[in-house]
Amino acid sequence: MDAIYNFSAGPAGLPKAVMELAQKEFVDWNGMGRSVMEISHRSKEFIAVAEAAERDLRELLQVPSNYKILFCQGGARAQFSAVPMNLLGQSTKACYVDGGYWANSAIAEANKYCEVQVVDAKTERDGKAAIAPATSWPIDDDAAYVHYCPNETIDGIEINDLPVTDKPIVADMSSTILSRQIDVSKFGVIYAGAQKNIGPAGITLVIVRDDLLDLASDILPSTLSYKLLDEKESMYNTPPTYAWYLSGLVFKWLKSIGGIAEMEKRNRNKAAALYKAIDDSDFYKNNVHPDNRSLMNVPFQLAKPELDALFLEQAEAKGLVALKGHRAVGGMRASIYNAMSEEGVNALVEFMGEFEKANR
Amino acid sequence: MDAIYNFSAGPAGLPKAVMELAQKEFVDWNGMGRSVMEISHRSKEFIAVAEAAERDLRELLQVPSNYKILFCQGGARAQFSAVPMNLLGQSTKACYVDGGYWANSAIAEANKYCEVQVVDAKTERDGKAAIAPATSWPIDDDAAYVHYCPNETIDGIEINDLPVTDKPIVADMSSTILSRQIDVSKFGVIYAGAQKNIGPAGITLVIVRDDLLDLASDILPSTLSYKLLDEKESMYNTPPTYAWYLSGLVFKWLKSIGGIAEMEKRNRNKAAALYKAIDDSDFYKNNVHPDNRSLMNVPFQLAKPELDALFLEQAEAKGLVALKGHRAVGGMRASIYNAMSEEGVNALVEFMGEFEKANR
Repeated sequence: MDAIYNFSAGPAGLPKAVMELAQKEFVDWNGMGRSVMEISHRSKEFIAVAEAAERDLRELLQVPSNYKILFCQGGARAQFSAVPMNLLGQSTKACYVDGGYWANSAIAEANKYCEVQVVDAKTERDGKAAIAPATSWPIDDDAAYVHYCPNETIDGIEINDLPVTDKPIVADMSSTILSRQIDVSKFGVIYAGAQKNIGPAGITLVIVRDDLLDLASDILPSTLSYKLLDEKESMYNTPPTYAWYLSGLVFKWLKSIGGIAEMEKRNRNKAAALYKAIDDSDFYKNNVHPDNRSLMNVPFQLAKPELDALFLEQAEAKGLVALKGHRAVGGMRASIYNAMSEEGVNALVEFMGEFEKANR
Repeated sequence: MDAIYNFSAGPAGLPKAVMELAQKEFVDWNGMGRSVMEISHRSKEFIAVAEAAERDLRELLQVPSNYKILFCQGGARAQFSAVPMNLLGQSTKACYVDGGYWANSAIAEANKYCEVQVVDAKTERDGKAAIAPATSWPIDDDAAYVHYCPNETIDGIEINDLPVTDKPIVADMSSTILSRQIDVSKFGVIYAGAQKNIGPAGITLVIVRDDLLDLASDILPSTLSYKLLDEKESMYNTPPTYAWYLSGLVFKWLKSIGGIAEMEKRNRNKAAALYKAIDDSDFYKNNVHPDNRSLMNVPFQLAKPELDALFLEQAEAKGLVALKGHRAVGGMRASIYNAMSEEGVNALVEFMGEFEKANR
């Protein structure tokens, strides 16, 4: 089969080298005659996997020593509940910055547990969707924390500013984590579902500052407790061991290519090439202001939407798959997470040029 | 490498045929040039996987049409919280039958959400650990439901009786599901972590009677809501797609060998052979009364515990792995879940005979 370039928004593609290694050792891992998914999470062999994953992630993101790294279940949506139940303490209010669909979903869930101060950050600039600068976000004095989602996958909008506050900042980084360098010390909690840049769906990363572990509500389910998960080294209950192992392989792959600095360089190249192809043509368009365009999810529309189906069909025939846009937006969406190669983006750009020539 | 017989208590071994098929199609599933874990859970290809898994499970367990099947995250421990938050309704009390470690863990969590009436069912019979008959379990009139765990993996104790009640019966079947025929219509909710008889760790099965979907508390996290998971066909958030796919392969394997009736026959043969080897010798012992011995987890001790380490070492050299008992009980534990073959149990029995001869 020819090369497949997978633009899936999630579960997304994983690095080829990782998948090939995992296949090779699928039924006989570590010389044990069985799969890594068939051994106890408490065996010394699996604990070595778990510890290496944490160590490599800590190195990749330069996570300071006063931050705990937790490997959880339930996806980012479970964190929508876990965040207020873990962090409110005596407070009854939290501030949520609204940049789109995912922020809104987090707000809806937080409303069950507290009064939510919503800061609507969505705006327009030069007729395009954009985000108001963080200096214009009012944050209530009595909010326990400030939550935001730096990347909205559906609209392809990115928030580059950090909230301006001395309260703990909580970020849903499901679709940005590991894509670029970040300063973890600016955050109270970072969480991320795995199925974009970490590993397969079914494991969720939480990075939490250690002074925030003692604020949990009495009604917090134990499986969502940051404190308990930390005390039990993310093995309070049987963890999703295979997803953890694959995530560990992804971390090693990231290190092998040169770490997050190199990954960020490649991601910026990929996004620049794709946005340039869109902007250089009046056949394609993207509705987001350059200030807030996502590095990871590039939605684009054809000037002639009646050609959408043909575009998708011909792209797929060339191995450019999963380009259909979210149903709420229509058109196309190229998700270009870490595992998407520059070669894959170049193949898409080339196809877009050919398709335009044939159909303009 | 010689055959490995994996007696792990969980994550347990998976059927060889399933693992070999999964390896073969690991990077190129369904002719798509990518893994099943690299496609959208909302793609028609993955939805077909999900629907087939549900259909096959419904057929295997003969699940009545008024029961919903949910594929969740968080393990059985997440259900320890989900059960009271989903089922209490206006009630403030639930009854929990205590048969050992796992029942106790469920009780500790339920205490956060309601008053728990604990029925201690543990007893002794002929000097061995046993369970008092269900007719002797008092159940409070105002309990919203009755919870029990039919198999205690650590002590190797099984509860064969059903609670005698007209209240919804909730069963943690993590280590018994699919091992034998059950009458689902007797239960309100059945739940089970996957990592014994279903698939890899990271997916959790819930089977819930449809009249119990409207009793949830306002503070129930959405990701744990039976009603919401049912409405969204277990895709309220991104599900653990790879674990779901592997579970589906296990269901197909069960059908291929003759379904649950055949599986139960094999499991009864396996357990009978192993208990016979223990009972026929005074070199080995098991402390559970035959009335309540587990079909799935067989703990046994050596009359000379100073030989434990040697037994484990020599067993491992013969490919009989993961036999070390739980730290709370010591000695040995052979977990003989569905994927353990009769051949594997026979190999263990043979080794036990040889070891006794050499060391008695």
